[in-house]
Amino acid sequence: MFSAFPFQNLSKLCIHTITTKSWPLEVAAEKYAKAGVKGITVWRDALAGRNPEQAGARIRDQGLSIVSLCRGGFFAGYSATERRAAIDDNRGAIAEAKALGAPLIVLVCGAVPGQKLSESRKQIQDGIAAILPDCIAAGVKLAVEPLHPMYADSRSAINTMAQANDLCEAIASPLVGVAVDVYHLWWDPLLEQEIARCGRMGKIFAYHVCDWRTPTIDFLNDRGLMGEGCIHLRQIRAWVEAAGFKGFNEVEVFSNRLWAMNQDEYLQQIVRSYSEFV
Amino acid sequence: MFSAFPFQNLSKLCIHTITTKSWPLEVAAEKYAKAGVKGITVWRDALAGRNPEQAGARIRDQGLSIVSLCRGGFFAGYSATERRAAIDDNRGAIAEAKALGAPLIVLVCGAVPGQKLSESRKQIQDGIAAILPDCIAAGVKLAVEPLHPMYADSRSAINTMAQANDLCEAIASPLVGVAVDVYHLWWDPLLEQEIARCGRMGKIFAYHVCDWRTPTIDFLNDRGLMGEGCIHLRQIRAWVEAAGFKGFNEVEVFSNRLWAMNQDEYLQQIVRSYSEFV
Repeated sequence: MFSAFPFQNLSKLCIHTITTKSWPLEVAAEKYAKAGVKGITVWRDALAGRNPEQAGARIRDQGLSIVSLCRGGFFAGYSATERRAAIDDNRGAIAEAKALGAPLIVLVCGAVPGQKLSESRKQIQDGIAAILPDCIAAGVKLAVEPLHPMYADSRSAINTMAQANDLCEAIASPLVGVAVDVYHLWWDPLLEQEIARCGRMGKIFAYHVCDWRTPTIDFLNDRGLMGEGCIHLRQIRAWVEAAGFKGFNEVEVFSNRLWAMNQDEYLQQIVRSYSEFV
Repeated sequence: MFSAFPFQNLSKLCIHTITTKSWPLEVAAEKYAKAGVKGITVWRDALAGRNPEQAGARIRDQGLSIVSLCRGGFFAGYSATERRAAIDDNRGAIAEAKALGAPLIVLVCGAVPGQKLSESRKQIQDGIAAILPDCIAAGVKLAVEPLHPMYADSRSAINTMAQANDLCEAIASPLVGVAVDVYHLWWDPLLEQEIARCGRMGKIFAYHVCDWRTPTIDFLNDRGLMGEGCIHLRQIRAWVEAAGFKGFNEVEVFSNRLWAMNQDEYLQQIVRSYSEFV
């Protein structure tokens, strides 16, 4: 296979489709594969209007591993009706993951403004419990992704590795683990010890990389490419691997700035940045 | 004294000058006092070009208590020269606080992009130790303010109550305590227990209120007035008071939106919002 960087080890490089979101799934898969990328995490919007089984087959034909489906969750809600709708939506995601051939769904767990975080956490645990039978039937795992505390108002009431570990302990299913994303967690003084704890439980299911820019000018879409920010990526990767993780390093970047670039050049930059900094 | 809201208890209401930053210090003090506000926290920029002793006397003549001087800190730096400059600047703040008659300086402790947070924390502890003799001589206390993790890149490597408590324990001076600010800390699952711990140490030196809006559109200047956001203010105040805190509730709001309002109307809104939600 052609690779622009044949001397660099890209065997664990995975890219999230949202990172190059203007490319249709088929284009992304082909271009990733040509650049030497080995894994892809498929966002659900990239599957829209497609048969997920055929989409999965086409991705695998490119030699790519499907690492996960992104994303499920959002279990918190003011009303039982909203929470049931979230559970139904997650069941849809499980069916999609199975058809696509993705072994894992990443969960952004949910939060609703004004509701106590402790209440949202209960609803999250209940929501995961409700979909576990579907996961077992489909053979699909779930990764709780702790989100940065700046998203605690409306996106996730799970904001640290410690909380994600506690939640996994409480659920106690081999199908439920944690997605470690450096963007959300790099600041946490307990990160090293909680990554180690997660590893001892065998629950590091995914590892996501990008960088934190100074200044960051948008709450959602101003992530940096690896090396553009202040995160000590090599150190966190070393902690994750010392804790037993052997999976992909997934590049997940939301950036208005980088989305505005020529996306072929951007892909080359991702590969270089990965090689140099991850 | 005239108060627009004579039936509401404003005896613990303090406002930070930055909240109404377009008003010169003398105007702010007069208007706060007329609205029934009892305390003021003076930001250093509001003192520019003034004799701090005279400024302090004039504020007290309005019947206001000077709660604190805001702010010192920023002890982290790449070079020893930068760190020495920060220490000198803090010594200047201590002299200003003494002259003004402010018993307390609030510390935004500092962080520099790319430097390990553990290293910045050491520099913060060293910086505080370096200025402690000046604090003792001046009779001025210091309040470590843990900042939201979204500021860990460039503003503070102290991002939780637990870290602030640990730092105070390590420094072990009766002059060094914690400023609890709901904006930075509301999301923390350990907040209740760490406020209680801080109280047992006798180290809750200040309590700052505002709110967290959804969506928040600016990393610095989009705070909400109390009641505009998702923070459970009454609950956190109850925790702080149960831990023994008897001081002011300080309204500290940075908001481009609210700064653009008629500031007299804004002040009335602050008083109403305080009465209803804090």
